[in-house]
Amino acid sequence: MRSVSVVGANMIRFGKNPKTLEEMGQEVVVGLLKDLNVDREKIDAVFGANVFGGHLPTQRVLKEIGMTGIPVFNVENACASGATAYHQAYQAIAHGIYDVALVIGVEKLTALGGGALPIPPNEIEGNHGIVMPGVYAMRAQRYLHDFNATSEDLALVSVKNRANGALNPYAQFQKPVTVEEVMSSRLIADPFTLLQCSANNGDGAAAVLVCATDRAKEFSDVSIKTEASVITSGLFKGGYRDLTWAEITYRAVNEAYQQANVKPEQIDMVEMHDAFTIAEVLYYEAMGFCEHGKGVEFLRDGKSQIDGQVAVNPSGGLISRGHPLGATGVAQIAETFWQLTCQAGKRQVKNPQYALTHVTGGGISGVDNGACGVHIFSAV
Amino acid sequence: MRSVSVVGANMIRFGKNPKTLEEMGQEVVVGLLKDLNVDREKIDAVFGANVFGGHLPTQRVLKEIGMTGIPVFNVENACASGATAYHQAYQAIAHGIYDVALVIGVEKLTALGGGALPIPPNEIEGNHGIVMPGVYAMRAQRYLHDFNATSEDLALVSVKNRANGALNPYAQFQKPVTVEEVMSSRLIADPFTLLQCSANNGDGAAAVLVCATDRAKEFSDVSIKTEASVITSGLFKGGYRDLTWAEITYRAVNEAYQQANVKPEQIDMVEMHDAFTIAEVLYYEAMGFCEHGKGVEFLRDGKSQIDGQVAVNPSGGLISRGHPLGATGVAQIAETFWQLTCQAGKRQVKNPQYALTHVTGGGISGVDNGACGVHIFSAV
Repeated sequence: MRSVSVVGANMIRFGKNPKTLEEMGQEVVVGLLKDLNVDREKIDAVFGANVFGGHLPTQRVLKEIGMTGIPVFNVENACASGATAYHQAYQAIAHGIYDVALVIGVEKLTALGGGALPIPPNEIEGNHGIVMPGVYAMRAQRYLHDFNATSEDLALVSVKNRANGALNPYAQFQKPVTVEEVMSSRLIADPFTLLQCSANNGDGAAAVLVCATDRAKEFSDVSIKTEASVITSGLFKGGYRDLTWAEITYRAVNEAYQQANVKPEQIDMVEMHDAFTIAEVLYYEAMGFCEHGKGVEFLRDGKSQIDGQVAVNPSGGLISRGHPLGATGVAQIAETFWQLTCQAGKRQVKNPQYALTHVTGGGISGVDNGACGVHIFSAV
Repeated sequence: MRSVSVVGANMIRFGKNPKTLEEMGQEVVVGLLKDLNVDREKIDAVFGANVFGGHLPTQRVLKEIGMTGIPVFNVENACASGATAYHQAYQAIAHGIYDVALVIGVEKLTALGGGALPIPPNEIEGNHGIVMPGVYAMRAQRYLHDFNATSEDLALVSVKNRANGALNPYAQFQKPVTVEEVMSSRLIADPFTLLQCSANNGDGAAAVLVCATDRAKEFSDVSIKTEASVITSGLFKGGYRDLTWAEITYRAVNEAYQQANVKPEQIDMVEMHDAFTIAEVLYYEAMGFCEHGKGVEFLRDGKSQIDGQVAVNPSGGLISRGHPLGATGVAQIAETFWQLTCQAGKRQVKNPQYALTHVTGGGISGVDNGACGVHIFSAV
């Protein structure tokens, strides 16, 4: 197996965007290829992530910019779509199928008209109201019941991530907030107030150029290496489930640690799936940064701050950056590229060596996620 | 690169189906694994093709039958979705990423409520009426103008494919038709009458089990080998285009011939994308079975009959079998498995050695197709 590198990244600021899905995708692809001065003829295949944009979204992005006549794969895995597209590009390059691939994530949530994201027609729980805010609210209630934590503690996730997002020109929300502001924003699903939820009204696009490591210098002086790439699906076991334990994330992250041969202590930064405040706390624990039940303490102690034990969501995460589904996983890898190559400006983590990206989602059976994607990257 | 085999296939009869998308998918997967007596633990990954079913369609199929916790990829490439899912499984096995994969195609067109298939919002031509029947009608008009052919000639495609479909228990339409019946059915887009178009109201599901050839015997006494696997995208060139020449098919098929090291004369049967009658004629020519402009003559001479020079659409093709988009490409491979292992019953082609499958579609820029998938298989 060959080593696989990311040699460049681009994204647009997430948020309500007057451009079409196609135009947003074109903006990030053209910008990336221009930045790197790459001839499009060098790109062997394109892997595109999108959830709600209709058929052939990637070809629709590419056709107006003349990237045509090559293999194009439209990949969907709910919130994990972007990671899945990267995973397929990674596997294809690692195993010699392609040398150079473009990974795109694009989503236009504002085209959906607002409200809860579309639910598949036969998804019984979802159609009875167990939509994402409800699922995570139940997890939060159980967590607050079982452990020594309060709703105000969870609000600290928003405070941290909005502070980070204020330093990120690509974030949908760039204004810091206080615990008081978080707690007094309107109630969405008890205990979550509006500012404890990622937005469902952000558009966005991101792209990364990926190649065999032995060709990285051809494209850029700076690059990062892929140390692990894992995609898995939910177990959907019936019966009792511990709502305070993120099983699919635990399973995917541990497989990634094994692939990369690293321990949680070696991870310097994480871009994780903080769709709601409780999620970030659950993932501290599932990723092994602290014991089960100690996530809030970890947060309170500042260990997930940019200058903490592990910088969690230096970009601002989903809560600040926004969460246009198909774009999120690719945006996390873009952020990781900038961080590991020390190009992250005011939100730069100090000399990170290992970074982890994590997306999980698609609640198709109440609390269980349908898909999860985890990657580990290293600085060169 | 390792050789990759198909070791089993299953599908349900296409057509209006009271079952949900999930239930149809479950029926083909459970049936296939039961037939082969395969322990689901042996399956490393699942590649699922679907276009219009919402997010995580494959996980929704799998969760109720306990195929969980493994990598699952939802793949979309419009009409070429099924071929794309197979292509990704093929590549992953050929390059040693997985040993055994399940490929599923499922689509519930009746859930769309009828009428033209959904068009992406910014697809200008489509939203001005250049939908698929219109695109292919223009191609047909030009073909009839340029070459020595009539509308009645095109009707012969329907007559042949409906006759084949009458022998196929999986076909949506199992009643033979005459040229007179074809010509007197209601007009859809001149020169096409209803019986010259594949149906837009068929549901369906199909699945194949794929593995490294050196493990084929573990699953079945019969198998077929993959000799070529090609996915490509449209060129979308502006300006004049010859409507009578299927450029994307020509390009994909020729790449497949090279991969397989076979010539058109060696192909014994083809499952091709006869979405409309003219399509089959264009593809005879693009696949090199006859010269450009001679497709109708080839048809009239019976050379594409089950007992002809090359058996084209022995299953009945899209015109008889129906065309639930994501399912079609996988159903073609299922048919090919049955034909090359001489299990195709009354529609059996005599001792076929090489078979080709072909799907193309997604008109996102007027006449150009967005994606095309071609495979060549051989009998063992």
